Amino acid sequence: MATRTLLFLHRNKVHLALFLLMYTHLLNCQQFVIPFTSPSDCGVEEFFDISSLTCVRCGPNEQRSTTGLSCICKTGYQTITTDKASITCQQCPTDKPAVTKDGFGCIRCPGSLSDVGQCQCSSGYILVERDNNGTLLDEAKCVVCIGNSPAWSVPNSSGDRCERCQASFITTSCECNPPNVLGGGLCFPSDTLSTNVNPSVNYAQLKFSVQSAWFVKNLYSSSAACLAYSNLTACQALGNMCVMNMHSFSGLSTDACGLFNTIFRSRAAAGSTQDISYWRANLPWLYYGEEPGLASRVLQTSPVPIGFSFRGTNKNTNIRLVAAVYNVRGEFLRWEKVGGGNLQLCPETVTKQAAAFSFGTAYRENCDLSVAQLLSAHPEPLFYDLFMDLGGEKNRKLLPLPTLVYNQQYNGRFINQDSMKDWYLSRRIFLVDTLSGRENSLSSLPKVIRVVSSVKIRFLLVPRTREGQVYPPLMIVTYSDVPITDINTQTVSTTFTVEYEMDQSEARLKTDTALGVMGGVAVLYSLIKTISWKRRIAYPIIDLETMLKFFLFYAGDLANVFFAVTVGTGLYWLIFYKAQQYVSVLLPLPAQEEQFVTYIGCAFALKAVQFLHKLINQVSVDVFLIDWERPRSKASRTVHAAGEPKRDPSPVSIWRTFFVANEWNEIQTIRKISPIFQIMAVLFFLEVLGFSNLALRDPWSTLQRSSQAYTPSYSLTLRYGLAATLWLCIGLLQVIFFTVFYEHFVEDKIRQFVDLCSISNISVLLLTHRCFGYYIHGRSVHGHADTNMEEMNNNLKREAESLCGQRGLLPNTDVQTFQVSLTSRLRSQYDRIRETLKKNAPTRLIDSSSNNSFEHNIRAYYTMNHFLGSIIDHAHPDMDYIVRDKLVFERVLGMEFLEPNDKSIFYNDNAHSFSDVLFYGNEATLLIFDTLFFCVVDLGSQSFVLAAVLTYVQQMIFRLIRNILGRKNLVNKTLVDERFLI
Amino acid sequence: MATRTLLFLHRNKVHLALFLLMYTHLLNCQQFVIPFTSPSDCGVEEFFDISSLTCVRCGPNEQRSTTGLSCICKTGYQTITTDKASITCQQCPTDKPAVTKDGFGCIRCPGSLSDVGQCQCSSGYILVERDNNGTLLDEAKCVVCIGNSPAWSVPNSSGDRCERCQASFITTSCECNPPNVLGGGLCFPSDTLSTNVNPSVNYAQLKFSVQSAWFVKNLYSSSAACLAYSNLTACQALGNMCVMNMHSFSGLSTDACGLFNTIFRSRAAAGSTQDISYWRANLPWLYYGEEPGLASRVLQTSPVPIGFSFRGTNKNTNIRLVAAVYNVRGEFLRWEKVGGGNLQLCPETVTKQAAAFSFGTAYRENCDLSVAQLLSAHPEPLFYDLFMDLGGEKNRKLLPLPTLVYNQQYNGRFINQDSMKDWYLSRRIFLVDTLSGRENSLSSLPKVIRVVSSVKIRFLLVPRTREGQVYPPLMIVTYSDVPITDINTQTVSTTFTVEYEMDQSEARLKTDTALGVMGGVAVLYSLIKTISWKRRIAYPIIDLETMLKFFLFYAGDLANVFFAVTVGTGLYWLIFYKAQQYVSVLLPLPAQEEQFVTYIGCAFALKAVQFLHKLINQVSVDVFLIDWERPRSKASRTVHAAGEPKRDPSPVSIWRTFFVANEWNEIQTIRKISPIFQIMAVLFFLEVLGFSNLALRDPWSTLQRSSQAYTPSYSLTLRYGLAATLWLCIGLLQVIFFTVFYEHFVEDKIRQFVDLCSISNISVLLLTHRCFGYYIHGRSVHGHADTNMEEMNNNLKREAESLCGQRGLLPNTDVQTFQVSLTSRLRSQYDRIRETLKKNAPTRLIDSSSNNSFEHNIRAYYTMNHFLGSIIDHAHPDMDYIVRDKLVFERVLGMEFLEPNDKSIFYNDNAHSFSDVLFYGNEATLLIFDTLFFCVVDLGSQSFVLAAVLTYVQQMIFRLIRNILGRKNLVNKTLVDERFLI
Repeated sequence: MATRTLLFLHRNKVHLALFLLMYTHLLNCQQFVIPFTSPSDCGVEEFFDISSLTCVRCGPNEQRSTTGLSCICKTGYQTITTDKASITCQQCPTDKPAVTKDGFGCIRCPGSLSDVGQCQCSSGYILVERDNNGTLLDEAKCVVCIGNSPAWSVPNSSGDRCERCQASFITTSCECNPPNVLGGGLCFPSDTLSTNVNPSVNYAQLKFSVQSAWFVKNLYSSSAACLAYSNLTACQALGNMCVMNMHSFSGLSTDACGLFNTIFRSRAAAGSTQDISYWRANLPWLYYGEEPGLASRVLQTSPVPIGFSFRGTNKNTNIRLVAAVYNVRGEFLRWEKVGGGNLQLCPETVTKQAAAFSFGTAYRENCDLSVAQLLSAHPEPLFYDLFMDLGGEKNRKLLPLPTLVYNQQYNGRFINQDSMKDWYLSRRIFLVDTLSGRENSLSSLPKVIRVVSSVKIRFLLVPRTREGQVYPPLMIVTYSDVPITDINTQTVSTTFTVEYEMDQSEARLKTDTALGVMGGVAVLYSLIKTISWKRRIAYPIIDLETMLKFFLFYAGDLANVFFAVTVGTGLYWLIFYKAQQYVSVLLPLPAQEEQFVTYIGCAFALKAVQFLHKLINQVSVDVFLIDWERPRSKASRTVHAAGEPKRDPSPVSIWRTFFVANEWNEIQTIRKISPIFQIMAVLFFLEVLGFSNLALRDPWSTLQRSSQAYTPSYSLTLRYGLAATLWLCIGLLQVIFFTVFYEHFVEDKIRQFVDLCSISNISVLLLTHRCFGYYIHGRSVHGHADTNMEEMNNNLKREAESLCGQRGLLPNTDVQTFQVSLTSRLRSQYDRIRETLKKNAPTRLIDSSSNNSFEHNIRAYYTMNHFLGSIIDHAHPDMDYIVRDKLVFERVLGMEFLEPNDKSIFYNDNAHSFSDVLFYGNEATLLIFDTLFFCVVDLGSQSFVLAAVLTYVQQMIFRLIRNILGRKNLVNKTLVDERFLI
Repeated sequence: MATRTLLFLHRNKVHLALFLLMYTHLLNCQQFVIPFTSPSDCGVEEFFDISSLTCVRCGPNEQRSTTGLSCICKTGYQTITTDKASITCQQCPTDKPAVTKDGFGCIRCPGSLSDVGQCQCSSGYILVERDNNGTLLDEAKCVVCIGNSPAWSVPNSSGDRCERCQASFITTSCECNPPNVLGGGLCFPSDTLSTNVNPSVNYAQLKFSVQSAWFVKNLYSSSAACLAYSNLTACQALGNMCVMNMHSFSGLSTDACGLFNTIFRSRAAAGSTQDISYWRANLPWLYYGEEPGLASRVLQTSPVPIGFSFRGTNKNTNIRLVAAVYNVRGEFLRWEKVGGGNLQLCPETVTKQAAAFSFGTAYRENCDLSVAQLLSAHPEPLFYDLFMDLGGEKNRKLLPLPTLVYNQQYNGRFINQDSMKDWYLSRRIFLVDTLSGRENSLSSLPKVIRVVSSVKIRFLLVPRTREGQVYPPLMIVTYSDVPITDINTQTVSTTFTVEYEMDQSEARLKTDTALGVMGGVAVLYSLIKTISWKRRIAYPIIDLETMLKFFLFYAGDLANVFFAVTVGTGLYWLIFYKAQQYVSVLLPLPAQEEQFVTYIGCAFALKAVQFLHKLINQVSVDVFLIDWERPRSKASRTVHAAGEPKRDPSPVSIWRTFFVANEWNEIQTIRKISPIFQIMAVLFFLEVLGFSNLALRDPWSTLQRSSQAYTPSYSLTLRYGLAATLWLCIGLLQVIFFTVFYEHFVEDKIRQFVDLCSISNISVLLLTHRCFGYYIHGRSVHGHADTNMEEMNNNLKREAESLCGQRGLLPNTDVQTFQVSLTSRLRSQYDRIRETLKKNAPTRLIDSSSNNSFEHNIRAYYTMNHFLGSIIDHAHPDMDYIVRDKLVFERVLGMEFLEPNDKSIFYNDNAHSFSDVLFYGNEATLLIFDTLFFCVVDLGSQSFVLAAVLTYVQQMIFRLIRNILGRKNLVNKTLVDERFLI
């Protein structure tokens, strides 16, 4: 109420009234509230009534029982049952002051009374209260048990009967007299074992040891019983203590593992069990031998004699593990099938846990466990000897699983954290040990508990197997020591992992070889490109720019190489891993994928360089629109020639030029695919249809996973392979759809542009290099295009009915598009005219001279128009040109063999290759760049949605840049006002 | 091998050789394979060596012990310990043929020998083998226990000692003689209870009963002990049996619940416990009373006296439940905090399970449990009496949780499956009962098990609370009966749910009121629209088309009403539920959302109708391009008038018209926002930034959830509210960005088009209705636009320097865009000219007449051009027009008050409202349609990604349709060839 009052001070009264009202109301109606009482709340003379859940007073002379749930008579009072249900208590008479053990009688004692008012006898004696036939004696008797032959008897644990003493005590009588040693309920001869044992448990992570109550109580007796009597459970118990000590030992110590090894060595003569030399008779098998290199021999020599197969009639993905389970006292409990949570501490449904033992499914579950729950669920550790079940109808065979305890120390060194040749394999594990950390008594709270923080089962595929064979799986366990501070809030994290590994060096070698070979080819190809470029700029000297160009070309080619190799690798894994029947390949582990990711990064970076290079080239291309239209009246033309253009009554309209320039501006960034549809389709396949599930680290190729089933983590390799393949496939399908169907039946923007040129009587000259470029011949076959609707339509109709000439540059051809190799002379002339344009262009903004400069420009424009028109018309014999076809080889190499020395060369080009200066002609580069961008973002963020969004943003930005710069270039080069490019 | 051989028959030999090789190899190297042996595999004379895990032969005369882990002597052989560890066995001499109970001695028997070769005495006698002091007797004695006073003794369970008999037996001696009845180890007087009890358990789902071994053994004795001796545990045990029978009873039966009720009634005098009349002393509280309507009184009268709050200093979301736990024998075990898996059978991490008891988090977990695991984990049922912990420092209070057992029957009827007034609330639940279904013995496999298939805790908020108060939570449990067939493969599904409910009738009333009011306004608004439409088509008669139009307008307005109401509701829940401090509202349950979803469906369907209507209107608009350009030479013009147009040396170029038409075609589908960016941005916010987490059914408003935390299900209401709000917000931001920034500083396509008209000397007349439309005045201020680049640039420059007139229709204005109301006469004239166009248009495809018809068209085009030009020039006095401003009220209503009777009226329109015939002017409709489309897909599929993809596809399709139809319309109306609209 305090805080509330503060908060609502201004409407205090209303609230108070409301509250009072409410509580009054509650008191009237709510009869169903009861106070909370627990048995411990009840007083000494009360018991907890389990029906009403309250404390109820006991009767007179009664007190509560130990459970607190009923009443018993006080000390010195005997119990009388009155009405067969309730009891009354009555004080014993003074001559029989003691109460019998059953509480119903009073009796005289031969000796003293205990605290609870019953008779007690001294040690070695038993208390007798009744005759054999049940008659209660007046006075109880203390009887001594005869320990000599042949009775060999001692009092039993409750002290009311004599029974035979334990075999190890029987010498002359049932007593364990020095020099014999009493330990753990057994009597050992003095020469068995030095009693000087070290019962401490070392918590290496916390850098302290604990004198463990369990070890104090049992270490000596277990060792002695194992050594002296070959007691099976004692030997197992000793082994368990060694396991609780992390298998750690040094040469000299007398701790659990030291004692175990002493006994192990002493049993050399007893022979080994099951033909395994590390497994001595009567002892548990804890260690593999000490020989150097044994670990790799055990783990990588002989394959497991069963083969795993993902599909088909022999489908076998079931990893069957069994465990022999022992309790901490060394008793064998049972054979247990591993699965369903006995090694998996994290709570999970059975289905998900079972996925851990399905071969090929990379399994990992981790969670935080509450220490309080661990303490209550695992009062004692259980010990597991793990085997792999090899099957077999009659003769089931088991393969022991070698275990690597990460915390194991040898002479104080963590040997198993080093390289494999130092590994010291062992056997037997436990999961939670809350016992060894109890310091003073076994019922006290432990000072430290040990919990397995990681269990990892690692399978290694036999190289080049076609039968799905693996080497014996290795189990790697790591424990963490948790000092107990506050059990209710403390948590421990634990992980269970199953990993599948194969030697990737061969695959890596193949990748690197492919990379090397294709990289070499790429150098050649880039060289050819550079040479081609040199020829096209007609500048033979090799300078720094040439080197730079070479590297830029090489970047693009190398990017393609990297891309091809990585996509190939990804696809290889996708197909071979997901589709194999017998297991022959396994996915690279995340650690093995680093190189692959680096390659993708390289591909992306290099592709970005190529893309930017192309972009810069495209926005600096030389473009000129040649208007063929001549004024109609011959008279005015001569007037024009005479230098009086202003008087011309009907000038040639500029609108056709505007139209063509506008259209050219619009097709700058059209592509062979719809990039948005591309993104949406990929997203649809990956996220909605569930193709992303193909990239999971398991061998299944189903698209829809049940939400109940286990979902493994993603493999970067598969994710990349999947995304890149999907992107390329959809891209390819789009390209096919657009080129085969859409452009034939709906519209082809490139074709339309060429047609437009022809109809509007305007040619386009594009120069990408100094002496190389493209020419679109747009001279109208009707002579005039600047006309009204009627004539326009007539023209179109005539052409449709083939009543006029063909559109081609050469008579009777219809080839309108050319690649052109210009002579240097022609280019120089072009540049000279251009010069005047360029010189003035930057000064256009200065108002004072703008008028003049603009007129300059216009004049240059007319000059250029006239010059280029006359060139095409063969009007300049010294700058003539020829038209020829390109050789196949020239096409393939992208290079011209003939140098245009005397005459320029126009190569027929029906493929509209002028689109190389647009996005349209560079679809491959754009598609690969987008693919890589998408994949790189996805690899970084593991989110296809984010990748899609960012890819869209990237495309938008680059399209914007290309459009703005392209328009600016067009304005500069063609003099068409920016306002008409809308 | 068999299958393999079949499969690879063709390369049989190779495989066989390979296999042989492999196995030989294995035999050489793989020394680590052991055979699998379990203790049960060992023979009678073998024991299981727990060290070597093999069977080992016992010594002579020995046999395996019951556990199979050691050897004992055969029957008739005594045990000799030779070297303190191993044993030997020696046959007993014939004079002492029996072996003592400890196995180490031989003895003579007074009577017969048992199967295991030990002495046995008849009932009532005990066997004595040793003296009190431990000396072994030569002959064992059978001693009778004295049952009379004062010894009152009977043999103990192992038959080797006399002890006091149980109190209920004590009459004259320790015997329960008829007519007394022996039951459950107690002796009852004959008048206690009829022994005719019904120990069957009824499995109503399976339609059969089982004579339960547990009931047979305990039902009579528990009832009798409870009735006769008021034994607390017996009463609880009887109650438990009633609970195991699903609390079901009928008036007459003598089954568990019948007996309980009999005893309950007989205890009326004993008074009630804790002031709760349904809870009698010594009995468990199983039922609330039978009064009709009690359920609703208990559940909806008095609020729980604590308030829940989601944030702030008084934050309290912790639902604390405690349970008194009893075992099946009726013993009280402990008070247990509910949580961490005691009611939740599904394995989950502690964090996730704890989320169930966080107020406001809709919790649901379900899983399939393996029957085998259930059997081993729940050998006996536990019984829970559940309470809600109301807190309090000293005086902790508990509120009993009423429980509704769905399976409860009353006289054979499932009363709790009916409406609330018939409900019969109860208390005490169990989770798994594998005990009552055991038919013959308690150790046999049960025939049926009962598992709780659903536990649901339902909280109901107090109406209009501001303090987060709830009524007592109701617990609904449903059990399923599982007949046991194959325990290893059988599974049972189980669910644990926590649900929060509030009375939604008030919210629904408010929604419906808003809908009604706004729907009424919408009718008015639609009426105005219809009237306006009638005036614009100048056709005053109300016909079917008018009705249709009214409904179409109404569809749009009603869609807006539905949209506003649903978005408002969604946003209301989003804000009020997620941001409230003290709990005052709770989300509607999925069942309560149906109406809401229907409203959204209505909004979408109506909006779609409106959208299609607009689309159809847009693609049928009348458009004409008026070319103002006149031929340059006066002479030629007169020639033209004289009917010899062919000789005109310079016709007016049609290219400007092409340019304008082309641009008009291009701006058909531009929008005020970028729809793709819209989709991407929404997807980015929802899926990448995690806004979708706001729609989860919990009170937290964090965007990033840990993968370890529990994820509740989505609320449709919140999902809709979130998606629609986000979509609208981003849309609005885009509109602001584009209208305020982009169109001012980058480009404004609409403005550009108007400018283009002006520069190209072309006006555009758009007629949307018969007598209403838009006019863009594009008459060039320079007189001629059909000119060369030089003049063009000069013109532009002159205009930039304000050296020429303004562009407006009226002198000295620059208003270029108008809404026009035409007179009927003008329209008729227009239609007449148009007629010739229309008549010919369809025949254009017929080749023979095509030439003629086309010339007709051209002539009509010129006529129209001339006619409209002269109208604008005020050349027709009978069809003159005036220009005026629109009134504010006219703008608001979208309706003209003045009827154009004599003169047409041109309204100044600076807002470019002609864009209403484009997508651009209908952004609101499109945005809302997209929003609804996105939300509807998402509601159906619960996938934002799918919604985004489909929204994109929808936009693409409609844009395509709009473009194609719009272009076709443009071609028909302006006569511009389709080939120029690229």
